[in-house]
Amino acid sequence: MKNWLIVFISSVIVGGTLHAQKAKRPNIILFLVDDMGWQDTSEPFWKEKTPLNKIYRTPSMERLAKEGMKFTNAYAAPVCTPSRVSLMTGMNTGHHGVTNWTSPLLNTPTDQKDDQFETADWNYNGLSPVPGVPYTIYATTFPQLLKDAGYFTVHVGKAHWGSQGTPGANPNNMGFIVNIGGGAAGQEQSYYGEENYGNKPGIYSVRATPGLQDYYGTNTFLTEALTREALKAIETPISRNEPFYLNMAHFALHVPVQPDPRFIEHYKDLDPEEAAYATLIEGMDKSLGDIMDFLKKKGVAENTIIIFMSDNGGLSITNRGGKPNTQNQPLKAGKGSVNEGGIREPMIVKWPGVVRGGTVTNQYVIIEDFFPTILEMAGIKNYKLVQQIDGQSFVPLLKNPNQTQNTRSLIWHIPNKWIKDDAGPGINYYSAIRKGDWKLIYSLRTGKTELYNLKTDIGEEKDLASGNADRCRLLTTELFHQLKEWKAPMPVEKTTGKPLPFPVE
Amino acid sequence: MKNWLIVFISSVIVGGTLHAQKAKRPNIILFLVDDMGWQDTSEPFWKEKTPLNKIYRTPSMERLAKEGMKFTNAYAAPVCTPSRVSLMTGMNTGHHGVTNWTSPLLNTPTDQKDDQFETADWNYNGLSPVPGVPYTIYATTFPQLLKDAGYFTVHVGKAHWGSQGTPGANPNNMGFIVNIGGGAAGQEQSYYGEENYGNKPGIYSVRATPGLQDYYGTNTFLTEALTREALKAIETPISRNEPFYLNMAHFALHVPVQPDPRFIEHYKDLDPEEAAYATLIEGMDKSLGDIMDFLKKKGVAENTIIIFMSDNGGLSITNRGGKPNTQNQPLKAGKGSVNEGGIREPMIVKWPGVVRGGTVTNQYVIIEDFFPTILEMAGIKNYKLVQQIDGQSFVPLLKNPNQTQNTRSLIWHIPNKWIKDDAGPGINYYSAIRKGDWKLIYSLRTGKTELYNLKTDIGEEKDLASGNADRCRLLTTELFHQLKEWKAPMPVEKTTGKPLPFPVE
Repeated sequence: MKNWLIVFISSVIVGGTLHAQKAKRPNIILFLVDDMGWQDTSEPFWKEKTPLNKIYRTPSMERLAKEGMKFTNAYAAPVCTPSRVSLMTGMNTGHHGVTNWTSPLLNTPTDQKDDQFETADWNYNGLSPVPGVPYTIYATTFPQLLKDAGYFTVHVGKAHWGSQGTPGANPNNMGFIVNIGGGAAGQEQSYYGEENYGNKPGIYSVRATPGLQDYYGTNTFLTEALTREALKAIETPISRNEPFYLNMAHFALHVPVQPDPRFIEHYKDLDPEEAAYATLIEGMDKSLGDIMDFLKKKGVAENTIIIFMSDNGGLSITNRGGKPNTQNQPLKAGKGSVNEGGIREPMIVKWPGVVRGGTVTNQYVIIEDFFPTILEMAGIKNYKLVQQIDGQSFVPLLKNPNQTQNTRSLIWHIPNKWIKDDAGPGINYYSAIRKGDWKLIYSLRTGKTELYNLKTDIGEEKDLASGNADRCRLLTTELFHQLKEWKAPMPVEKTTGKPLPFPVE
Repeated sequence: MKNWLIVFISSVIVGGTLHAQKAKRPNIILFLVDDMGWQDTSEPFWKEKTPLNKIYRTPSMERLAKEGMKFTNAYAAPVCTPSRVSLMTGMNTGHHGVTNWTSPLLNTPTDQKDDQFETADWNYNGLSPVPGVPYTIYATTFPQLLKDAGYFTVHVGKAHWGSQGTPGANPNNMGFIVNIGGGAAGQEQSYYGEENYGNKPGIYSVRATPGLQDYYGTNTFLTEALTREALKAIETPISRNEPFYLNMAHFALHVPVQPDPRFIEHYKDLDPEEAAYATLIEGMDKSLGDIMDFLKKKGVAENTIIIFMSDNGGLSITNRGGKPNTQNQPLKAGKGSVNEGGIREPMIVKWPGVVRGGTVTNQYVIIEDFFPTILEMAGIKNYKLVQQIDGQSFVPLLKNPNQTQNTRSLIWHIPNKWIKDDAGPGINYYSAIRKGDWKLIYSLRTGKTELYNLKTDIGEEKDLASGNADRCRLLTTELFHQLKEWKAPMPVEKTTGKPLPFPVE
């Protein structure tokens, strides 16, 4: 046999195999916005374009929706760490027990003082990739599985999975090869390069964003700096023809709501706080567009999945213009609430070759579903986890947007006092369950239930509990049976010093 | 032809080729210590064990020397950024023009005030990987070339290549895929995890080390935290069978000289400052040992080159015990000085299969030589650079330690006022040249020359200038012809407002 023949044959076979393998492994970008409400976009997620949709400018989201599938009933937890831990672990909030946001400081529950309750026994140090760290949930993260399977994993921006002094504070411990700016902080100290993103003596706090020294003193807005670093980081796997996972987790739109000077003139007619907020949205959207353009330029857009998501509802209590709790209309309330304004998210998935552009699904999904979905997208099967996951892959839905599943129940559980009393409906000490179009809300403080039909009443205005006692009982039972099985933390009654018993029969 | 035959043949060929290719590409670790003097070790670099060698404990360095080649005449620049930029660019200090340490703050020359001179026109914003940044040297870095060639490049610890607000502040712009803790700062604010390495409101400064949040509040000494992060980072390329370059750049032994509690009991008999310094040394040495153990455990020790080096001489003026300028004996002076104490470094190279263990070379080499050497080690040829390099590969020396080359000239040039007057000999406004055993030192302030024969007078005690006018003239001419050709910065005379002319005929 001639040598050239051997070489030729081997090239064809091996080249072919490698190529086929690579083609099977898409790049995946999770574009995760912080505190973005369901209406903080010009892309309508409701049946009609709302007044809020008309205020904001998000052409890149519109473009993404044209190229992908829009989810009108996508959910997260009402506050950020619970959502982010659900995302990383595939577990429901009630199951992983990180039920409130984690302080950057170790062993520091963030709950407000309350007359009736002591702090629940929740995992206030967050998520840990190693066992034995007090007050954490020990779990296997999906980025670790992606990395183990050969993905080049990059985290950029807000992490907020664990407190300082625990392994969970460091994205490099969570399966990320590269970390830009991620740590224990749940928000930025400053969006401004001129302020070194908070790394200045005097204005420095535990919220200062690390790792962006080359932008210090420049007029580079934080959203822009993170985007540039993200593109630089994914250039490595692209140039090596390796699949990558990018966790593009913006600090925007979190308070402090500081205006982005690049866009402020677009919002001259708004009151200053709302105008500033709108510039944060537009800067975030520019980031999305820049990433999409970059993928196209590099020739990998057709093999890259983009998942757009927010981690909780839009803030509707402070630092925003207008009357409180109107910022997510038609949804009720906002961040912190188990009402729709606190948990329903703008979600879009682009998956070239799989998802048909411009499609819409009304099927409900929740943040813990991302875990099995992303692993399925990457073709990773039979993985080993230390935890039981609760999420379900929505890959079938991506392949068929008309698929419906109304028997599944989604659960929310916040046995915490996130903020002072009377901030808005559905905030502090609530559990909730959605099944089909029905949603039951249970006040852990009073034991009162509310029942809404979301199909006819997206604004949760008409409480149907009194006329539907059976349905309420069934949903309440299911809700708390599940939470009991998960050993979910419960508020501790001051009178007894014990956790509130699960209200199950 | 049967299918199994094709598969078999292709596996053999391709498997074999890949294996051979990988075997050709060694991992490379540069273990770069900060401010470590030639005598800050129990491994003797002189002809005999000195009293200083008897104080310090560096068993890992002894082990490395047994497994590699010891360089007794290895040089760097007298202060850190000049050395680090020479390392990254392959250029001499006088050529790249970063002749003093760079401030973390933009556009801030670090020179002390002087009666005779204004600040020279040096590149006080450091090294830049992109053109057009004021007061920087634009150059191609060798880590970028390694990365481009498929190396997995990791920077850990002190970078100090450029000021905040310039691209050079960020190791990710310098060819590093992963950066842990590197930025514009030239020193740590604190070695203590208990102090969050300086990231605490109140003690925070521009010197706070970023990116180590999971160690905050713990008793993890900075040297230890960086080592653990380094091992985590190189686990990725090891598990993927990719060659890696690790820039393990410790902040130790830089001031503040804070005792490492793990080792303090070994030095009870020393005065507290010297004891603290000795613990920094021992912690650094433990890091080296941990890395060597890790490589062995992972089965890659035999394919990993380790280069041990320091960036300038040991500090001999403040924050150390004993009489000033005795800390590097038998060498004269210390950090900041063009005398041997300021520039001669402890250097060891282990290269399994190439370098014979326990060998010693007395041939002189200098920090800019690392650039072509490391690229040659990695098998990278015909690379394109935007700069002309001055360094020469010492790979031939590694293969034959007895090789000598006495016609080459090494040059030092510090047209800066690093520190207040009279701190020690050879400090502030000096140039120097070594050729063979002869070394000429030229004071830019006075025009006075000193001449030493290092073979017979390592301590530079006997100035031979007066009896060797011809030799002095020749060396002075060569020194300043070269500096003139490089357009080296020169101190600006206050009387004329112009740079000092080069003293060439």
